[in-house]
Amino acid sequence: MEKLRFGVAYYDEYMPYDRLEQDVRMMREAGINTVRIAESTWSTLEPQPGVFDFSHVDRVLDAMGRAGIDVIVGTPTYAVPAWMVRRHPGVLAQTHAGPGRYGPRQIMDITDPDYLRYAERVIRKLIGHVCGHPAVVGYQLDNETKHYDVCGERVQRRFVAWLRAQFGTTDALNAAFGLDYWSNRVDDWDDFPDVRNTINASLRGAFERFRRELVTEFLAWQASIVREYARPGQFLTHNFDFAWRNHSYGVQPAVDHKQAAQCLTVAGCDIYHPSQDGLTGMEIAFGGAITRGLLRAPYLVLETQAQGFPCWTPYPGQLFLQAMSHLAHGAHMVEYWHWHSIHNAIETYWKGLLSHDFLPGEPYREACRIGEAMRRLAPAIADLRVKSRCAILVSNGALTAVESFPIGSADEPCDYNRVFRFLHDAFYRANVPVDVLFPEDADGLDRYDLVAVPALYAAPESLLARLRDYALGGGTLLCTFKTAFSDEHVKVYPDRQPHLLADALGVSYSEFTYPCGVTLSGVGLPAEQRRVRSFMELVTPAPGAQVLCRYEHPHWGRYAAFTRNACGNGHAYYLACLTSDEALDALLPGVLADAGISLDGLPRFPLCVRMLEGEGRRARFYLNYSDDARDIRALEGGVDALTDESVAQDASLTLGPWGVRIVLSRA
Amino acid sequence: MEKLRFGVAYYDEYMPYDRLEQDVRMMREAGINTVRIAESTWSTLEPQPGVFDFSHVDRVLDAMGRAGIDVIVGTPTYAVPAWMVRRHPGVLAQTHAGPGRYGPRQIMDITDPDYLRYAERVIRKLIGHVCGHPAVVGYQLDNETKHYDVCGERVQRRFVAWLRAQFGTTDALNAAFGLDYWSNRVDDWDDFPDVRNTINASLRGAFERFRRELVTEFLAWQASIVREYARPGQFLTHNFDFAWRNHSYGVQPAVDHKQAAQCLTVAGCDIYHPSQDGLTGMEIAFGGAITRGLLRAPYLVLETQAQGFPCWTPYPGQLFLQAMSHLAHGAHMVEYWHWHSIHNAIETYWKGLLSHDFLPGEPYREACRIGEAMRRLAPAIADLRVKSRCAILVSNGALTAVESFPIGSADEPCDYNRVFRFLHDAFYRANVPVDVLFPEDADGLDRYDLVAVPALYAAPESLLARLRDYALGGGTLLCTFKTAFSDEHVKVYPDRQPHLLADALGVSYSEFTYPCGVTLSGVGLPAEQRRVRSFMELVTPAPGAQVLCRYEHPHWGRYAAFTRNACGNGHAYYLACLTSDEALDALLPGVLADAGISLDGLPRFPLCVRMLEGEGRRARFYLNYSDDARDIRALEGGVDALTDESVAQDASLTLGPWGVRIVLSRA
Amino acid sequence: MEKLRFGVAYYDEYMPYDRLEQDVRMMREAGINTVRIAESTWSTLEPQPGVFDFSHVDRVLDAMGRAGIDVIVGTPTYAVPAWMVRRHPGVLAQTHAGPGRYGPRQIMDITDPDYLRYAERVIRKLIGHVCGHPAVVGYQLDNETKHYDVCGERVQRRFVAWLRAQFGTTDALNAAFGLDYWSNRVDDWDDFPDVRNTINASLRGAFERFRRELVTEFLAWQASIVREYARPGQFLTHNFDFAWRNHSYGVQPAVDHKQAAQCLTVAGCDIYHPSQDGLTGMEIAFGGAITRGLLRAPYLVLETQAQGFPCWTPYPGQLFLQAMSHLAHGAHMVEYWHWHSIHNAIETYWKGLLSHDFLPGEPYREACRIGEAMRRLAPAIADLRVKSRCAILVSNGALTAVESFPIGSADEPCDYNRVFRFLHDAFYRANVPVDVLFPEDADGLDRYDLVAVPALYAAPESLLARLRDYALGGGTLLCTFKTAFSDEHVKVYPDRQPHLLADALGVSYSEFTYPCGVTLSGVGLPAEQRRVRSFMELVTPAPGAQVLCRYEHPHWGRYAAFTRNACGNGHAYYLACLTSDEALDALLPGVLADAGISLDGLPRFPLCVRMLEGEGRRARFYLNYSDDARDIRALEGGVDALTDESVAQDASLTLGPWGVRIVLSRA
Repeated sequence: MEKLRFGVAYYDEYMPYDRLEQDVRMMREAGINTVRIAESTWSTLEPQPGVFDFSHVDRVLDAMGRAGIDVIVGTPTYAVPAWMVRRHPGVLAQTHAGPGRYGPRQIMDITDPDYLRYAERVIRKLIGHVCGHPAVVGYQLDNETKHYDVCGERVQRRFVAWLRAQFGTTDALNAAFGLDYWSNRVDDWDDFPDVRNTINASLRGAFERFRRELVTEFLAWQASIVREYARPGQFLTHNFDFAWRNHSYGVQPAVDHKQAAQCLTVAGCDIYHPSQDGLTGMEIAFGGAITRGLLRAPYLVLETQAQGFPCWTPYPGQLFLQAMSHLAHGAHMVEYWHWHSIHNAIETYWKGLLSHDFLPGEPYREACRIGEAMRRLAPAIADLRVKSRCAILVSNGALTAVESFPIGSADEPCDYNRVFRFLHDAFYRANVPVDVLFPEDADGLDRYDLVAVPALYAAPESLLARLRDYALGGGTLLCTFKTAFSDEHVKVYPDRQPHLLADALGVSYSEFTYPCGVTLSGVGLPAEQRRVRSFMELVTPAPGAQVLCRYEHPHWGRYAAFTRNACGNGHAYYLACLTSDEALDALLPGVLADAGISLDGLPRFPLCVRMLEGEGRRARFYLNYSDDARDIRALEGGVDALTDESVAQDASLTLGPWGVRIVLSRA
Repeated sequence: MEKLRFGVAYYDEYMPYDRLEQDVRMMREAGINTVRIAESTWSTLEPQPGVFDFSHVDRVLDAMGRAGIDVIVGTPTYAVPAWMVRRHPGVLAQTHAGPGRYGPRQIMDITDPDYLRYAERVIRKLIGHVCGHPAVVGYQLDNETKHYDVCGERVQRRFVAWLRAQFGTTDALNAAFGLDYWSNRVDDWDDFPDVRNTINASLRGAFERFRRELVTEFLAWQASIVREYARPGQFLTHNFDFAWRNHSYGVQPAVDHKQAAQCLTVAGCDIYHPSQDGLTGMEIAFGGAITRGLLRAPYLVLETQAQGFPCWTPYPGQLFLQAMSHLAHGAHMVEYWHWHSIHNAIETYWKGLLSHDFLPGEPYREACRIGEAMRRLAPAIADLRVKSRCAILVSNGALTAVESFPIGSADEPCDYNRVFRFLHDAFYRANVPVDVLFPEDADGLDRYDLVAVPALYAAPESLLARLRDYALGGGTLLCTFKTAFSDEHVKVYPDRQPHLLADALGVSYSEFTYPCGVTLSGVGLPAEQRRVRSFMELVTPAPGAQVLCRYEHPHWGRYAAFTRNACGNGHAYYLACLTSDEALDALLPGVLADAGISLDGLPRFPLCVRMLEGEGRRARFYLNYSDDARDIRALEGGVDALTDESVAQDASLTLGPWGVRIVLSRA
Repeated sequence: MEKLRFGVAYYDEYMPYDRLEQDVRMMREAGINTVRIAESTWSTLEPQPGVFDFSHVDRVLDAMGRAGIDVIVGTPTYAVPAWMVRRHPGVLAQTHAGPGRYGPRQIMDITDPDYLRYAERVIRKLIGHVCGHPAVVGYQLDNETKHYDVCGERVQRRFVAWLRAQFGTTDALNAAFGLDYWSNRVDDWDDFPDVRNTINASLRGAFERFRRELVTEFLAWQASIVREYARPGQFLTHNFDFAWRNHSYGVQPAVDHKQAAQCLTVAGCDIYHPSQDGLTGMEIAFGGAITRGLLRAPYLVLETQAQGFPCWTPYPGQLFLQAMSHLAHGAHMVEYWHWHSIHNAIETYWKGLLSHDFLPGEPYREACRIGEAMRRLAPAIADLRVKSRCAILVSNGALTAVESFPIGSADEPCDYNRVFRFLHDAFYRANVPVDVLFPEDADGLDRYDLVAVPALYAAPESLLARLRDYALGGGTLLCTFKTAFSDEHVKVYPDRQPHLLADALGVSYSEFTYPCGVTLSGVGLPAEQRRVRSFMELVTPAPGAQVLCRYEHPHWGRYAAFTRNACGNGHAYYLACLTSDEALDALLPGVLADAGISLDGLPRFPLCVRMLEGEGRRARFYLNYSDDARDIRALEGGVDALTDESVAQDASLTLGPWGVRIVLSRA
């Protein structure tokens, strides 16, 4: 994998006329060395049940092979053909919205026996057909797999069996989930009711966990089939996607990325983000941090935007900045969705590297610069790695629990990913790299000097104890509001909150509210930036704990908003409310200082610095996320990786609008 | 009933560990003398069909009995067990949204034979089991019963029979409801169409009336069963709730409170209201006025918030102020929902008197003050009553009719309850107590010096004649826009509006519109406060009528907005448009003056004064609904009920933020 | 048809008491000479299947006949009786929302055999019954017919057959519609999937076209039946309605007006529009332009508002202004919906000429003025016609395609009709009359000096070639953004855009975006009015093309926003973005100048001038669409049509608020 890949998704199937040779020539000129094919086109590969036609695949493999372009072949299972739905309407997932209707992709029940039977056959046929082709370097299993809200009867029956295996008796389940409430108790497994409209967050959370496991199971099943064919050296990957709010936003609710990734050789993801004046690199950073951590290794950006939505048409320089940023976060591939812009159907305005006219436009010309840069960079940086001293611990279970109990009011909503991004983006703006950990990574906490924990609302005592021990053992722990409130079954801990962490954090509270005209003391900022947002806990500090911020309010002024507690060999911080970004920016340096991390000499966003490290070598990326030319100080001397010019330490580097400099240094 | 009750809803069933003795001790310390149990827990009481387990009930009854705490036992019928739904899916109400899904409470068809059979059995078992226990003082029938939008086929068949019984022939129905319109005519009862999507407001209104009658019937049926068991002295009550807009807001659309209450011994309700800076006491006032009038007697507040939603976490003093306000409006019980905060399920963030940690927090400490105060107050005030000289006449029929024809535009919506609150709250701000009457109370109009009538859009001629005669007979009548427009079948009266009242009111109109840039003349207020809102009628005054306000507008200036007419021995006022609260505050004193009611010497909101009266004794409540300490003049000398200090007439009483003083006087 | 008709829709069926003679008297006094009856009342005409009762029809025909009032009889087929739905539930259209529910009108499947059988019978019975009555002057077929989103299985089967007839093979279909995308390919006609949830805009567009053809077919079928009965001189019309946004807004998406009108003798429509301060006459203008063009002849306004919604209660003078404006655009009838205001059901607050009290109110008094004016005007203007030198070319296909791909972002949405109105209203404000053409009218382009083309997103090459040739041949062509982008199957043309027109227009582009902080250079307006809205193309001008406006933006400044190109004997303009109305107003005169159209001496909106022309005679309407009295210069001398006073050329005519003057001139 020590190769930097620059790629596109390519569909000979969609071309309005035969362009293959022309496209390959243009790709080569742009430095594209990898394409992904086949993952959306089941109905073309198998136009009638059992009738296979791999002619498009073959022609593309041959052409790419001749041009020296590597090919990733996707299993085509995320979009089902019309003939299957006609014959087996049950392959469409029953969801909260009712029975599915044909049309979009990702509408099937990934546990349906008919679907699985057809899927296995097409995978075997396709992978068996291509695995020997020298152009094929790896496989993508399905695409952006999720559970698609499947909740039909069969899935619910499996869920009840899953609960029964866990709890044994209905009494145990009733107790753990508090089902006595509003007469939801179950006293015979056969009475188990429809869960689709449950008012019990424990049950809803369990159902979500169960459905995330269906995704893990499905991908592992595909992996086991593909491995029967894969030649040595061919990798298996998957294109994970993130929570979506018009763009990649945060932790994916419908998949346990950590668990699902364990069947892969290399982790992959897609990252889509705002552009033009909204381009910040933050999504590139968090998406990279999550994906990098899944197998603790470099990852593939299997899809990202060249042009995408009309609002994302890039300014000059932005595509280049984006590509370099992916590399700076540890990606080994940057691949565009798609090569060309589609002439029919829903993604016509989700534009590719080429516009509908196939002419070499602005994005293509910038891709040529990127290809050239990657060719130069590959030998220098492909074996370097991101090293983070800080980590953010995220949890699908907490995310789902908070979906049942939104943190903020309707006026100022706040959910789990909002808190995740609130923390993550502050580290990003401070130019402090972070890893992202899942509960399965808890054993590795001690690798980090600082662990930040957003809204870990639902967690077992074992995980809370791990966090406590991390702080006592010398770490710097930063927990936000809503951490350690309920157990893994979303039952509120019936004692002093934050449960099990109160002593280490040096705080406790019984009450909380939405802030109305509440500001923060202790930070020198304008009033609007000191305004408390969405949610606040009325925290009483323990003796010895240091109150760094209080609330300013006629009645809540006696409560603490932000505290620091020396505990054991470490320090524990508690942030009891959501604040403005500016307030968190003002508070974070103190926390970092306790972890021994200094921001001295570092620029701040919109100037970004990222570093890759290896044996005696470093590559520093200086990135200008703004529309103005800016100067930045070289943190170390070295060589400009793109121009081979030498750079002195402390030299002033000029970055144009959305500009990039990469400096290679030796220790 | 001459006891002041301070209580909580208590659920041993929900406890994460056995806390009964500890809870009882804490209750006693807080002065809690009544608990309500059992009404939500059918599945615990009857875990399998016909298998009953009253162990939680028994333990609580015994513990409460030992502690001298009275118990109200609720029938558990508002939340059905899973086993019933599995066996009889038809118990779930078919609604406009389609077939019901298990999960929430209050999802059943209250006319379903299976449901009723099981409900009768569990009621008989439970009430038969507890009726002899000395701790049991009364029963609550079901909870917040409504029709839950039931509109399945069986209910619709009953509705057609109900129509047929009323109208006899389809011709009579077609004529009364105007069914010729858009070809909706029915010429054979067997052709009667699905009413769920009707465009005929007469039909929709009749269906709503029919469904409200189902609630009356259901509660009367439960009452008849419970009465078979009730011992002498044990009361029957029900927890009525109000129209809901994130809190109790107005007249309940889905229940005829007046009719449904007739099967009870004592009326009850729940009142939930904004808190913190939004606490005004207005919901306590209107909820009390409605419930007090149902049986013309003191009432029980069977539920109200201790903490409730996160936005309602009370400021210090607010819980005390709320409790005293309930008493000041004639309540004989103040009961919190719940004792503790729930650890699982949907109401986890609808917090009780105790937080999830069960520790004695701020709300509990304030409850101790309340308990102590109620102990002191009981002998002095339990036999006193609210006396109102003013009444507001409300109508479920008018409310429902206006749902079909909203009063205001989408930009400035206005519905029936908006108009009700518009009037009610103005009386409240003026410190003039009001009763609330239903059409069934029309015979008692003459008990009042002033009757206010909000948007009585649909009313039979008999009721309109009653209002006219009230004014002619010497009363002061205040009607708003949209009064007397259509008959009881929501057919617009085809003659001069307001029908039958035009002469008494001294007004008529043919046209109306939404106000655009229209202000009110005749009140000395800033322009924004004189802005006409939502809806306006283009009223022409009759000769002799006095125009108190006109519209300011290039074209509508010739029409009247507010008029006064001397008629017979009384006066009739007509308000032709919705105004700002400030404008109504400015206009109301003149109306009150005609009724002989003077506001001289009375404070105004946020200072409130309320009075209870009895044989030669009075209790005056001075309530400060603000965050500032304020002084108020004692309207009469007497004794401070909480401190026993004497208070001289005209003495200046200092009220702290959200403060209360209660002065007992003798005539 | 050379008669000016003034009319009302009249329903004896809805009257709360017998008013026929009284109503006829009031109509005559108001100058009403035509009524429309019967089209909403199937259940009254046929109270039970096969049982007919024409007594209301007969009484009205006789009374009108006696009074000399003409009658248009509508077929009653747009609202089905309850008895039909009980017997044949399948007559209710299956739509995207699922199976229909009885209640509203226009809920049936217009292709259902049961519905059609009953419809044919009632049409034959009714028309056969009335055709001989001397009062009957014409027939209205159904009312506001649309396809009502019918998409049940039978309709979908017909659609597949329709596709098969067009494409022959599935391969041809797959290629034309790009069905390979997301595995939507169909390789056996029997596999054809449910189209209701398709993600393919080509398929969706074809389904919409197919469904519009169902409307054409249905009306032609009704016409063929009615023609069997119609006597010579009796006309056939239909009441077309327009896209609806709380009022008539633009091109109707669900009907091909041009095609559907071909079965009629005279075209009709309803026009509803804002009133009070929002009255502009723009809807009267575009509705008139569309309907006038359908058969290139005068048209009937079969419905318009007297009072309508509460927000439309007219100011004094507005009803008169509206009526005169309809005439000024070529209407030969102005008819109100309804005579009276309805006392029950959904349209109670859609008021008629009389209010619910039937008294002669303000609107009635103004109708009397209108009736008198029409009586005077008829001989002078009934044979005059609108003559337009400019035309706007609209397209249902483009409209539907843009529904799949909205032009603007959610923040600043823009659709096809927004662009149509954007252009249309600018011509209106400039007092330049326009015709509206459909693609079927393309052969007639050369009749016009200027053709404007809004967002012709989907069009066959033949139409684009026609537009190109129009410009080359000497015409002035103005195209907006989104023109010539995709073919008639909504497949994007895979070459330089705008396809086939790039050379003539002198522009090309590959990229586009949503404007963020982009303004227009080249127009002297405040910044806000120069702000680019919703959508912009990054246009590169061809050598020789003149850039009239550029974008002001750090990155987009090199692209053109508005261009002019001399081509062949004509000129072609391209507007690459949506602008403010003010900016278009500033740009339009230059375009008009190239077409030889001068605005010298013309007033501008809110003063409007419209002209009707005939053999040596002209009638000019001077219309004041404002609340202020204004003076206007007489463009030609003549005689005031309403007062017979003579008017000198250049005389200053005073128009009161919402005032009208009509001057008759001779050449």
